[in-house]
Amino acid sequence: MDEFDYIKNYFKPLTNSAARELKDDAAVYKPSLNKDIVITTDSIVEGIHFFGFEDPKLIAQKALRVNLSDIASMGAKPLFYNLALNIPKSKVKKFIPKFVEGLKHDQLKYNISLIGGDLTSSLKHINITITMFGHLPTGGAIPRDNVKNGDNLYVTGELGLSKIGLENFNSKSHLFLEAKKKYLLPEPRVELGMLLRKFVNSMIDVSDGLVQDASHLAFNSDLSLELDINSLPIPIFSNLITKYIIDCALYGGDDYELLFSCDPINEELLKKISSKKNIKITKIGFFYESDDKKITFKNINKKPKKISFKHF
Amino acid sequence: MDEFDYIKNYFKPLTNSAARELKDDAAVYKPSLNKDIVITTDSIVEGIHFFGFEDPKLIAQKALRVNLSDIASMGAKPLFYNLALNIPKSKVKKFIPKFVEGLKHDQLKYNISLIGGDLTSSLKHINITITMFGHLPTGGAIPRDNVKNGDNLYVTGELGLSKIGLENFNSKSHLFLEAKKKYLLPEPRVELGMLLRKFVNSMIDVSDGLVQDASHLAFNSDLSLELDINSLPIPIFSNLITKYIIDCALYGGDDYELLFSCDPINEELLKKISSKKNIKITKIGFFYESDDKKITFKNINKKPKKISFKHF
Repeated sequence: MDEFDYIKNYFKPLTNSAARELKDDAAVYKPSLNKDIVITTDSIVEGIHFFGFEDPKLIAQKALRVNLSDIASMGAKPLFYNLALNIPKSKVKKFIPKFVEGLKHDQLKYNISLIGGDLTSSLKHINITITMFGHLPTGGAIPRDNVKNGDNLYVTGELGLSKIGLENFNSKSHLFLEAKKKYLLPEPRVELGMLLRKFVNSMIDVSDGLVQDASHLAFNSDLSLELDINSLPIPIFSNLITKYIIDCALYGGDDYELLFSCDPINEELLKKISSKKNIKITKIGFFYESDDKKITFKNINKKPKKISFKHF
Repeated sequence: MDEFDYIKNYFKPLTNSAARELKDDAAVYKPSLNKDIVITTDSIVEGIHFFGFEDPKLIAQKALRVNLSDIASMGAKPLFYNLALNIPKSKVKKFIPKFVEGLKHDQLKYNISLIGGDLTSSLKHINITITMFGHLPTGGAIPRDNVKNGDNLYVTGELGLSKIGLENFNSKSHLFLEAKKKYLLPEPRVELGMLLRKFVNSMIDVSDGLVQDASHLAFNSDLSLELDINSLPIPIFSNLITKYIIDCALYGGDDYELLFSCDPINEELLKKISSKKNIKITKIGFFYESDDKKITFKNINKKPKKISFKHF
């Protein structure tokens, strides 16, 4: 099979009408009236973002989900995506069928379709780039720089689990199973993002670590932030010391939880949304005006470090 | 400098308002009324699509232009693009400043802007994926499968030059300078594509080789095609035999010329467009109905081969 066969047999069945059966040079999309289109791109690269020995189904799902998380943090409804897969010839035959299974699974789960892309060879490693599209009412996108003085900071789910999964990936203990699963297969908060859109002032997804991502909200909005360490929604591990778990929550990446600022007046509303969707929403800090913009910790005698993941 | 510094110092100056200063998780675009959006994605990979020793400025321009060529072949006006750059740490410092120069140059030339993307490390080689956006009046996109019985086949510019440049890349002869330049830096027919939109029935860009790309037009439209070998617009090389040049024109890739079908009634119009834009437009064949769909050659005693570039 050459790339045209793979496209026809594996990728074409994943497409919607904008893809024009992958027969043209480009996809054509007729935008909905009174909607803004939201566009995000994330790559995942073998040896950097994934090991390479994972089930290709999981790799496909991770590639989609890191992008869906960005769509969620804008408050948008996901629509479709395109995919560039650069893959060494030797890996194609084993990789693509399972990879496509993963795409298909998450297309159903998130109600999205493929609209096009590029399938090429690559010398040494697999590189996957997905561009994900969503839409929302005109002007309705949630920015990062609109935190109001006095807003609380909230986060969904738990923090640090993914980092614990990654750092203990080779452990045989069953205690790390859930953490490893979270690392391999994040759960983007897509529905929640859409629900929160009307109430929150600023939102971001936690992909680079809480401290770094929270600092984007604070500093882009010209405010300071106090993070309450005792409030952090951290997972329970009987075999780990709490100090380590808190460090993972503060600086670990790949959580893909939603981190947002909201007027305290909406506290009850958030509780209702949380209970309706059965997803924990925790208040972990508040924003305030100050002369020197800073992030401080409450309930721990430490200052924030700058140890988040850097590519370069 | 880490990736945030590179984004701020090098990539942010390339953006438009949809990019929201690259501060959010996604770009937000308000579509124009009565327009369809055209979306295409092409990767170029070190060791596959480019050597790696080229000036990074040229690599950036090639990455943009292969995508612009797809937008041109739909008849659309290019708007903006996003960029995923996966690059080994050791190459960042030398590569990015020159790469960004190339982006900047072509942004001015084609009136496009950056709206977002992803900058990550990569283990061994550089992978560049660009998603290019264009728009055109609703329903106006030129498909590949709308050739009419009796249409002529036309092509812009010359064919085979890029392949000759690639195959003679190490030659020191000045006779190959233009060919090498065409291989390194294609000229997508963006303006011409927009002008042709109203007159042509089907269009594609020649990226995989004339025979293969022409067969997409014919077979997707359920027609046969006769290609006139004597009419092919081939370059002149005093040091090459014509048989080799014709082979490059028929099967060489990377020409990025527009190949389109058009009612013969528009012949005079095409001549005017060609002379106005100073770009050669040559009639090289015609489509016809037949029981068995096929491509045949006129003026040469051979059958078309299947030797176009395959990734797998």
